[in-house]
Amino acid sequence: MFNFQHLIIGKPLRTEEGAQEKLPKWKALSIFSSDALSSVGYGPEQIIVTLAIPGMLIYGYFGYATIAVIALLATVTLSYVQVARANPGGGGSYSIALQNLGETPALIAAASLIADYVLTVAVSVSAGTDALVSAFPALIGKEMSINLVVLFGVLTVFNLRGVRESSNIFVWPTYLFILGITCLIGTGIYKALTGITPIIPAASLVKQQADWVIIILALRAFANGCSSMTGIEAISNGVTMFKEPTVKNAIKTTYSMAALLGFMIAGISFLFMHYHLLPEENATMLSQLAEQIVGRGWAYYYIQITTMLILFLAANTAYNGLPPLLSIMARDSYVPRYLGEKGERLGYSKGILLLSFISATLIIVFNGNVEHLISLYAIGVFLSFTIAQTSLVVKWRREKGTGWISRVALNSFGACVTGIVVLVISITKFSHGAWIVIVFIPTMIYILKSIHSHYITTANQLRVSPEDFINRLEIYQPKNLVIVPISGITKVVAASIRYSKTLGGDIIVLYVYTDEEDCRRFKEKWNNLNLDIPLRVLYSPYRSIVQPVLGYVSELEMQKSIYHYITIVIPEFEPAKWWHRLLHNQTGWILRTLLILRENVIVSTLPYHLKK
Amino acid sequence: MFNFQHLIIGKPLRTEEGAQEKLPKWKALSIFSSDALSSVGYGPEQIIVTLAIPGMLIYGYFGYATIAVIALLATVTLSYVQVARANPGGGGSYSIALQNLGETPALIAAASLIADYVLTVAVSVSAGTDALVSAFPALIGKEMSINLVVLFGVLTVFNLRGVRESSNIFVWPTYLFILGITCLIGTGIYKALTGITPIIPAASLVKQQADWVIIILALRAFANGCSSMTGIEAISNGVTMFKEPTVKNAIKTTYSMAALLGFMIAGISFLFMHYHLLPEENATMLSQLAEQIVGRGWAYYYIQITTMLILFLAANTAYNGLPPLLSIMARDSYVPRYLGEKGERLGYSKGILLLSFISATLIIVFNGNVEHLISLYAIGVFLSFTIAQTSLVVKWRREKGTGWISRVALNSFGACVTGIVVLVISITKFSHGAWIVIVFIPTMIYILKSIHSHYITTANQLRVSPEDFINRLEIYQPKNLVIVPISGITKVVAASIRYSKTLGGDIIVLYVYTDEEDCRRFKEKWNNLNLDIPLRVLYSPYRSIVQPVLGYVSELEMQKSIYHYITIVIPEFEPAKWWHRLLHNQTGWILRTLLILRENVIVSTLPYHLKK
Repeated sequence: MFNFQHLIIGKPLRTEEGAQEKLPKWKALSIFSSDALSSVGYGPEQIIVTLAIPGMLIYGYFGYATIAVIALLATVTLSYVQVARANPGGGGSYSIALQNLGETPALIAAASLIADYVLTVAVSVSAGTDALVSAFPALIGKEMSINLVVLFGVLTVFNLRGVRESSNIFVWPTYLFILGITCLIGTGIYKALTGITPIIPAASLVKQQADWVIIILALRAFANGCSSMTGIEAISNGVTMFKEPTVKNAIKTTYSMAALLGFMIAGISFLFMHYHLLPEENATMLSQLAEQIVGRGWAYYYIQITTMLILFLAANTAYNGLPPLLSIMARDSYVPRYLGEKGERLGYSKGILLLSFISATLIIVFNGNVEHLISLYAIGVFLSFTIAQTSLVVKWRREKGTGWISRVALNSFGACVTGIVVLVISITKFSHGAWIVIVFIPTMIYILKSIHSHYITTANQLRVSPEDFINRLEIYQPKNLVIVPISGITKVVAASIRYSKTLGGDIIVLYVYTDEEDCRRFKEKWNNLNLDIPLRVLYSPYRSIVQPVLGYVSELEMQKSIYHYITIVIPEFEPAKWWHRLLHNQTGWILRTLLILRENVIVSTLPYHLKK
Repeated sequence: MFNFQHLIIGKPLRTEEGAQEKLPKWKALSIFSSDALSSVGYGPEQIIVTLAIPGMLIYGYFGYATIAVIALLATVTLSYVQVARANPGGGGSYSIALQNLGETPALIAAASLIADYVLTVAVSVSAGTDALVSAFPALIGKEMSINLVVLFGVLTVFNLRGVRESSNIFVWPTYLFILGITCLIGTGIYKALTGITPIIPAASLVKQQADWVIIILALRAFANGCSSMTGIEAISNGVTMFKEPTVKNAIKTTYSMAALLGFMIAGISFLFMHYHLLPEENATMLSQLAEQIVGRGWAYYYIQITTMLILFLAANTAYNGLPPLLSIMARDSYVPRYLGEKGERLGYSKGILLLSFISATLIIVFNGNVEHLISLYAIGVFLSFTIAQTSLVVKWRREKGTGWISRVALNSFGACVTGIVVLVISITKFSHGAWIVIVFIPTMIYILKSIHSHYITTANQLRVSPEDFINRLEIYQPKNLVIVPISGITKVVAASIRYSKTLGGDIIVLYVYTDEEDCRRFKEKWNNLNLDIPLRVLYSPYRSIVQPVLGYVSELEMQKSIYHYITIVIPEFEPAKWWHRLLHNQTGWILRTLLILRENVIVSTLPYHLKK
């Protein structure tokens, strides 16, 4: 068992080995940026889907929407550089909101981020599988198996092994994808400039006179386009994973990522307009574009496979984001404490497994068709953007450090813009699923606050002063009654009684019977032993062993006897072969589970090893 | 939880209430005969399927095969009356084989019966659902849900409630089915006699010259027809469930059942030949016959629905057969003992649940298409017939009671005939799935013998003489070392130490640390308490709490110290709300599970109740 585990995830690492597990910039870029970069596969398409309505001439708003998205990207990037700087401990918007705005805004940000990460895994894994299956139709029908193999066999295992190793394996796909898309854009632009068709055909510039319907559609197109920006926050949540100087490296990497993303969105949108592409049923627009520019040859398969790989990497981003966030929240007692414990390989193994299981559930429940959730998580992301920047405004105003006025201006502007984006998405997409987010976030906050309150009240109940501690040990000398339930006269019973005699309390032996005759014979045998231990027999009308024992214990409790503790000694067979366990009924186990609910009733489990 | 259980299966019954739960003959007939009677729905058809091969003229052998089946039925019935008489304690062929032939033949019979019962449930439930769905096409696609609802919602619940109640609810379908089929046969024969077509048309009498191929096909047809006889043994396995005089009532019921079955097989086969019916793709031959005789009106639906009901009842037969068989085998230590325990309602509840879960697994694995297993279980049934009758031959010869010679003659004849049937089915259907049975039975025997041997060696290991028992208690005075693992200075720790002090042994407090600084601070606090209890600190390089504790215990064990027992006191939080349990990690539980594998290490679980 243990060796198998070590084979899969590697031998345990000592705590001191932790410091090595840090990322250089070029590796961090590949790990943190895949979520953001992979979204160019659907972001520009999401804009056109809204605008390319038959009978309406509003394709012309595409350019404006794209420019708005890129401008927003620039704003968000500049703001997020401040987040990384203000909060080198990681945790992103949650941590800075907790420091500057208080509990509720921090939990809103946390709930948004949690939803975002889980959706990223579910959506990216299924989208990556779809890309693979489109390229190799022989795999049709095996999507669910591929999803689960990628999720558990690849992502979970590599993340449990630890960050650096996952980086070594996952580092190339991002660069191959960047190379592919860059070449595609370069070739496309070269062909556009040297071709005979106009750069942007008139059809792509047509736009109807603006009225309310058109404005709402254009805003919804912009809202959809914002899905390109999901993942931009990944770096600010994982600052601690960078090599020294962590903050500086994180900031540089953020700039590189944003530049790459902006370039790709701009290039692809330009080419969409140049070729005046429209959405089709069975092919993504990116694959249409690749077909237009390079034809359906090896280059097409290159784009398809690197798209698949970067989507799986995008799922991996969440593994680098959610477990550290949960560990910070665990330290603050908002999620179960054990989510903050580092596993054998120094990763937050329980957080990793939790993320895998929740994502697998989503994929299974939606049967792999989770793509329509893509635009949903944009709300969560922008909500956390808004909260993060508002927090920074509060922070800069309070600290009044060098250049605080320009910082306040920058972050105020960012907060306003992203806040408006949240409103735009919520309103224009309310009936398209935005309501789910609006239900999820308050529910999640309620849960997080309940957990927090449990930990706080528990700590208060357990806290004790040194004086009180000593008093509790010395007030009076408690007495112990030892009960040994037995079913006959065997070696196990001898072992139980012998142990009970070491316990320094009075002993009672308990015999449960369902048949008068059996009981009579047992009493005779017992009396012949002439032991100085009282026997108590109990009749069980309903043939259960457990109920009479529980009833007897209740009776003793009610009698307010001289005993402060009741200790029940229950033997547990340890059979020689594992399957023998199936042959013994679990009376001992059931008894233990039910007795532990009583106060001052202690269950002592005595192992009895069978030799064959 | 408990009230919910009582709502579904009724309040618990006292052991003394058991005597009431006995069946009068007319109810017993409906409960035990449905398996046998329902097989007229497919038995005759199974014969024709083999004979109606395009291009071969062998339909004419149908009559001979049917006569052979009916003759066999008579022989088996007479023999089985002897089984009931020889073995009033129930358990059928297993019990008499164990008494007369020895272990292995008894286990062959038991394995055959177990396979038979499980297949009966799986096959009958899915066939019943198919009958329902054929009548109401709106239910197409919901077959699996219907199967599982019938299995768990109806059969399991009613059998857990107890025999008499199930009888009251399940009693009518059998009689309605008998009435329907009898009317169908009566109407058919009346029409045949008053009609203008010849009673048996020439086409139905055509048979090719016999050669080896024809003989094998005719034998296979006969072998298939033997599937009509599955279920005939049900009564002899359940003799104890009859009202007094049990044996006499059981025998009368067996005769009634066999007579009904013989009449139906003969009538239906005659009508098949009269109308010269041939198997069709999408309708059972019984439904073709009903359509020929009464048209597709209400009478057709009556036949269809009573067929469904009797099939579900046939599944119910297995619930009246397998759990009592398992309880007898449990008494003999061939299956887990708890299968012999009566539940709250005096049914063998664990056997009932086991049967439901195994059948559900079969239905799910075969996706409800288990019909092709129908002819398989005939082998098992005839194997157990052969063994039962051979056992009786041995018994009569040994006892030499009144009329023993004619009994020996009857049962020897029966044993030979059914033995030949086993050979015929095994050979003619070997590649059609008979090999599965031939693999299953030896495997099952191996498992049953392993279980038996475990119980016997366990009993031998536990057995103790009164002198030895007293010696074991008095040899020497064992000493106890009490270990209290703690993680800080809290009220729980105070409670644990206070309890430990009552245990009459030396106490050591154990503190596991992962951080030097934490450890130093803890030591300081502990020393300030000035308790007279030694503290031992352990460093955990891999951040696990469990490993260092296990290591420390191993160390103590190897030191061969003065202590005979090591008792570890582990507090268990009992939170105020159930979900709070999810917020505490299960270190205590893991520690207990791993420590219990050591010898002489006792785990004492001390409950600590949180008030809020």
